[in-house]
Amino acid sequence: MTTIPVALGARSYDVRIEPGLLASAGEVLAPLSRGRPMPIVTDTNLAAHCETLVASLAAAGVAAPVLVLPAGESTKSWAQLEALTDWLLAQGVVRSDHVIALGGGVIGDLVGFATSILKRGCNFVQIPTTLLAQVDSSVGGKTAINSRAGKNLIGAFHQPSLVLIDPQVLDTLPQRELRAGYAEVAKYGLIDDAAFFAWCEENADALFAGDPAARATAIGHSVAAKARIVAADERETTGTRALLNLGHTFGHALEAETGFSDTLLHGEAVAAGMALAFAFSAQQGLCPAADAERVAAHLRSVGLPDGLAAAGVTADGKTLVGHMLHDKKMEGSTLPFLLARGIGQTYLDKTVDLETVAAFLDGVR
Amino acid sequence: MTTIPVALGARSYDVRIEPGLLASAGEVLAPLSRGRPMPIVTDTNLAAHCETLVASLAAAGVAAPVLVLPAGESTKSWAQLEALTDWLLAQGVVRSDHVIALGGGVIGDLVGFATSILKRGCNFVQIPTTLLAQVDSSVGGKTAINSRAGKNLIGAFHQPSLVLIDPQVLDTLPQRELRAGYAEVAKYGLIDDAAFFAWCEENADALFAGDPAARATAIGHSVAAKARIVAADERETTGTRALLNLGHTFGHALEAETGFSDTLLHGEAVAAGMALAFAFSAQQGLCPAADAERVAAHLRSVGLPDGLAAAGVTADGKTLVGHMLHDKKMEGSTLPFLLARGIGQTYLDKTVDLETVAAFLDGVR
Repeated sequence: MTTIPVALGARSYDVRIEPGLLASAGEVLAPLSRGRPMPIVTDTNLAAHCETLVASLAAAGVAAPVLVLPAGESTKSWAQLEALTDWLLAQGVVRSDHVIALGGGVIGDLVGFATSILKRGCNFVQIPTTLLAQVDSSVGGKTAINSRAGKNLIGAFHQPSLVLIDPQVLDTLPQRELRAGYAEVAKYGLIDDAAFFAWCEENADALFAGDPAARATAIGHSVAAKARIVAADERETTGTRALLNLGHTFGHALEAETGFSDTLLHGEAVAAGMALAFAFSAQQGLCPAADAERVAAHLRSVGLPDGLAAAGVTADGKTLVGHMLHDKKMEGSTLPFLLARGIGQTYLDKTVDLETVAAFLDGVR
Repeated sequence: MTTIPVALGARSYDVRIEPGLLASAGEVLAPLSRGRPMPIVTDTNLAAHCETLVASLAAAGVAAPVLVLPAGESTKSWAQLEALTDWLLAQGVVRSDHVIALGGGVIGDLVGFATSILKRGCNFVQIPTTLLAQVDSSVGGKTAINSRAGKNLIGAFHQPSLVLIDPQVLDTLPQRELRAGYAEVAKYGLIDDAAFFAWCEENADALFAGDPAARATAIGHSVAAKARIVAADERETTGTRALLNLGHTFGHALEAETGFSDTLLHGEAVAAGMALAFAFSAQQGLCPAADAERVAAHLRSVGLPDGLAAAGVTADGKTLVGHMLHDKKMEGSTLPFLLARGIGQTYLDKTVDLETVAAFLDGVR
């Protein structure tokens, strides 16, 4: 088993990664339960994995009532948040109890937020079942629901007590979702680790073909990178954590334009957004054009969109910049952008002119 | 102006107390606004105070859009929380902005919670307008709404950036609400400050008659006591902060029995609860009977209930203990109680037997 510590003082926790971990999770979780039940929240797509987990907990003597929520982004709602907290209260959950989030980013975000506000905070464990959740959303403590005005606008920073990652659960994940999650893996290379991006270029095919070693390496390296960045800036106040948003500002505009729907998954939008961030950096003379082309080529090679057209977006620059203005990262009237001086050399730029961005987008339509 | 610091590291803030402060709040708040609007959330009972505040902000060049919510406990709901966050998002509030909570505990709890989850946390300023909010709920960062299952079960620890207390606003507060707030003032003496309790006994009449010096002393001393206790245990993890719950476990049972209604205000329940905690301590041989009688006599003398009958509660001990089991302070199957060895000598006892409590309550019906 690989164990990666997330060093956050009193809120520190471990991420454990091991093929087959779901079936032996009961042993790992029993000490946390201290004889109390561990409620599981999951979604309608995960019945088989949930059965494995419940059986493993039962074998370790831990009771685990289950709440199954509808799969999909619409579950990150006020109505589901209230229903979930009502259910947890009905289960008699107290502050020292641990609730298990078994699912992708939707379940992790919703359960993380619900447990952060239940009795002003109880504990939770993340068992992420998608590649995106394993390498990104399950680590770092960002939790949220969506509001009428936009995605993830209501939420909290709430760290899990433990994250259990079983790479084998990816065997049943649709390829499109695997690709979407892979965008965040490649992101860690682009941010500050050119050697890891080169590893991605060499090993992506093996990863998509199901090679267990390639998957374990990709997940372990990504989690370690995220743990390092989050430990340096837990609440996104110093700018370090903002590096994780590479591709997310351009990507947010694409998601808004496509209505945050299955037309363009979050990871797909991030892929296109990273390609756009590098292309914009190259156009501005900040980054070699060859690096921007290498980023786009790798994303294309794994079937991810490398720009506006591939993402199916035809809107003009002004429209897309308009979406960016509703990004929750807006600071007064400016929006910080992640730009690049090269692969593995990104930085936060707070002086980007939005009209220049709009003109760039019009140029690459 | 009296300034009391609340020392919480990066979350430290000041409580400023001054008669007439509401009319000069604009000067104090303008530096926080940094040219941005400061949205005000208040309730239907506070139109005149809100007008004073808006005028003061306008004179200091600060725009202040106002949201007026229905007065009363039912405003601490999921529906109002969602509506409030939608309104704040529509106002374009960003993480570095400050939202003003102008009101009593309901407005402070709701706005504090809403700002804690808006974009994962923006700032807020408390301007408490009841004695209860001035000496208790506006300081310390506990925020919440009520759920179907009980009061304050959904919330967060979220510290304000600043608390402005104008004792003059109490001139328009109904006497019954003033008395209810006074229960929390006397509480600080009973917890660990026998000299302050003696001051209360001597000066309560002047305070209720409107003497500005008595009010300023009572508020300043109470805020300083709360600031000290909260600084020692911000998130209620070491047991120190639990001292603030003196009378609240018995009181919670009385509030639950009377349906959390205007039949028995929170402060009235706390008064009766403190008298019961001292009477129980005396009955258990922990505390001199004379101290328990002195507590009851002082509460009676200001018109606060000193026990079950005065609180209008006729339920038996078993019923009342049943309500306590739904207290969010429950730890597994035990409930910590604040007991007393004398006036100013309270302590947390985690070994209290609930059947003994029930028998005691039957004995004092």
